[in-house]
Amino acid sequence: MNRSLFLLLALLTAFTSAMAQRPPALSSPDVHPDHTITFRYFSKNAQNVTLNGEFLKAPMAMTKDTAGIWSVTVPPVKPDIYPYSFTVDNVQMSDPNNTYIFANERFKRSIVEVPGDQPLVHSLQNVPHGKVSYRYYKSSTLDTTRTLLVYTPPNFDPKAKTQYPVLYLIHGGSDTEETWIKVGRANLIADNLIAQGKAKPMLIVMPYGNVRPAPMADFTKDVVNDIIPFVEANYPVIKDSKGRAVAGFSVGGGQTLNIGLTNPDKFAYVCSYAPYTATEEFKKNFSDWSPNADAMNKQLKLFTVSVGTEDFLYEPVKQNIAMFNEKKINVKPLIVPGGHTWMNCKLYLANTLPQLFK
Amino acid sequence: MNRSLFLLLALLTAFTSAMAQRPPALSSPDVHPDHTITFRYFSKNAQNVTLNGEFLKAPMAMTKDTAGIWSVTVPPVKPDIYPYSFTVDNVQMSDPNNTYIFANERFKRSIVEVPGDQPLVHSLQNVPHGKVSYRYYKSSTLDTTRTLLVYTPPNFDPKAKTQYPVLYLIHGGSDTEETWIKVGRANLIADNLIAQGKAKPMLIVMPYGNVRPAPMADFTKDVVNDIIPFVEANYPVIKDSKGRAVAGFSVGGGQTLNIGLTNPDKFAYVCSYAPYTATEEFKKNFSDWSPNADAMNKQLKLFTVSVGTEDFLYEPVKQNIAMFNEKKINVKPLIVPGGHTWMNCKLYLANTLPQLFK
Repeated sequence: MNRSLFLLLALLTAFTSAMAQRPPALSSPDVHPDHTITFRYFSKNAQNVTLNGEFLKAPMAMTKDTAGIWSVTVPPVKPDIYPYSFTVDNVQMSDPNNTYIFANERFKRSIVEVPGDQPLVHSLQNVPHGKVSYRYYKSSTLDTTRTLLVYTPPNFDPKAKTQYPVLYLIHGGSDTEETWIKVGRANLIADNLIAQGKAKPMLIVMPYGNVRPAPMADFTKDVVNDIIPFVEANYPVIKDSKGRAVAGFSVGGGQTLNIGLTNPDKFAYVCSYAPYTATEEFKKNFSDWSPNADAMNKQLKLFTVSVGTEDFLYEPVKQNIAMFNEKKINVKPLIVPGGHTWMNCKLYLANTLPQLFK
Repeated sequence: MNRSLFLLLALLTAFTSAMAQRPPALSSPDVHPDHTITFRYFSKNAQNVTLNGEFLKAPMAMTKDTAGIWSVTVPPVKPDIYPYSFTVDNVQMSDPNNTYIFANERFKRSIVEVPGDQPLVHSLQNVPHGKVSYRYYKSSTLDTTRTLLVYTPPNFDPKAKTQYPVLYLIHGGSDTEETWIKVGRANLIADNLIAQGKAKPMLIVMPYGNVRPAPMADFTKDVVNDIIPFVEANYPVIKDSKGRAVAGFSVGGGQTLNIGLTNPDKFAYVCSYAPYTATEEFKKNFSDWSPNADAMNKQLKLFTVSVGTEDFLYEPVKQNIAMFNEKKINVKPLIVPGGHTWMNCKLYLANTLPQLFK
């Protein structure tokens, strides 16, 4: 940085932070070549600062130097993208020195990316890239204008005669419509798998699944009555069940089951990731469920339920799978190591995409 | 929220915040109907918490109750979108209870929107909406893949025979390519002005102006040699100067002058907002500048420099305007009240759009 720019920034800082004494500029997170990571946080008055991250089994204490800089270095971490946070005197917060924030309405977390020695399925690689568009649509169900994101694949032709299939992809509870991109890298996973010929070119529509204060079941209506018509009016997409998939994580995994299995005429692919199903809507739909299994198994070309063995929802998800088996619904479980995390989410999505629209 | 979802979230919290005692859920910012706003922050151990915001002339002290909740209510605020932050024991931070974060790599600020009694030029209104797309392009200048955002107007036709003009719109120092959307609402300002017939349908391309550690002047090369060719290869746009505008704020306002005035054959519209010009690149371009004023005035259909009278760059910007006048370059100043703020940025953009591509 040249000197005059530095002086400007110092002046700007004085203006915007009201003459507060600037904390030292810290590098955090600091990812080292050996995959260890150093985290730093500045506070003179805090009594206790800990690091929590999805690469840790338990929080780690951070220690303060005489300048008020708290730090800790964690042992080598498996290459991936991880959420983490600091807990400062019992308050969880994101890392103030890190621009990459976990898109979430409740938890204050930052993101650290540990690159692999080889590119990972979510890495930005030298392949053709699709684009992600932020759109507004009118929801008659919710009587408002809402946002959604649309991934279109490389070389997407909006006037194409060949019609594209669509994956409707739903975030977890308290996430936002941005989380599948900003944390889950759904666009890069699709770019990479399409480039390798493993996934078909498709659209991925990422709605905002939180309809509060409306009842949760209104989201199912919003998807069926508002979002699908919006997508089909604005993009050259296949307009029957064989061209539609629905997938989602956690609360969105539960929404996926509600949306997909009550509308098997509309979705031939239903992919539920670590679903949270202790909801009124799920209870209403499935507690006395008596599906025509033969008919449904013909309609569903793929019905998969994924979960990690360390996921705190592992037991209820296994019970759900057992329930579907008992009803003779063909369900394809994917049971892998790992917890209720976005690392696993990326893995589930990368596993799903090659199975869609075959 | 139903009871089981509440229990799940409590459980999730326990998992993700490592058994830390949860702070109370706070409503912050709390915008009241009379346009007063209450801000809240939880800390038992902090010694001093102040609120700073661009709606204040000076920071306001926050006071702590017995539960450790710091709060302050500010007097009625003029409807607009404002950045604000808390300073906790001399450390600036964003509001942990607010999802809306100012997209910036250096300053930790949140955003509060005070709605008007009538819709404002940046409000989401019941008009046709364009879309904002996140794109990757290859920069030969910087030898990497970079991101940019592209606004396309309502009813945009990618195969149109009618070609669209393009505004290249640059953020301020330490902002990101998202700031003009997330804070500046460039898309909604364009939607509203296009719906009113005040602005022509156009593309708005928002690059990432920070090329460090490369020299700043490389951004000018990146725009001319990489970004413009990418846009012109991928969108049905006018490929001469009359269909190109460049605008930017602060450091981006200085970049606008460097890009636009050294390439008047490429940009017929140059709109600089509160430019920061104490840079090597500006010095190199303009300290011994002897333009052919007649030729340049013919090429430039609009050259405007905007600044607020309370902007800390007001004096140097006035000196720049005087320099352009002295060189007989037709410059159209826009001097308004206000500081070096994104409230003023939105005003400058709303003033610019109706003047472009006439």
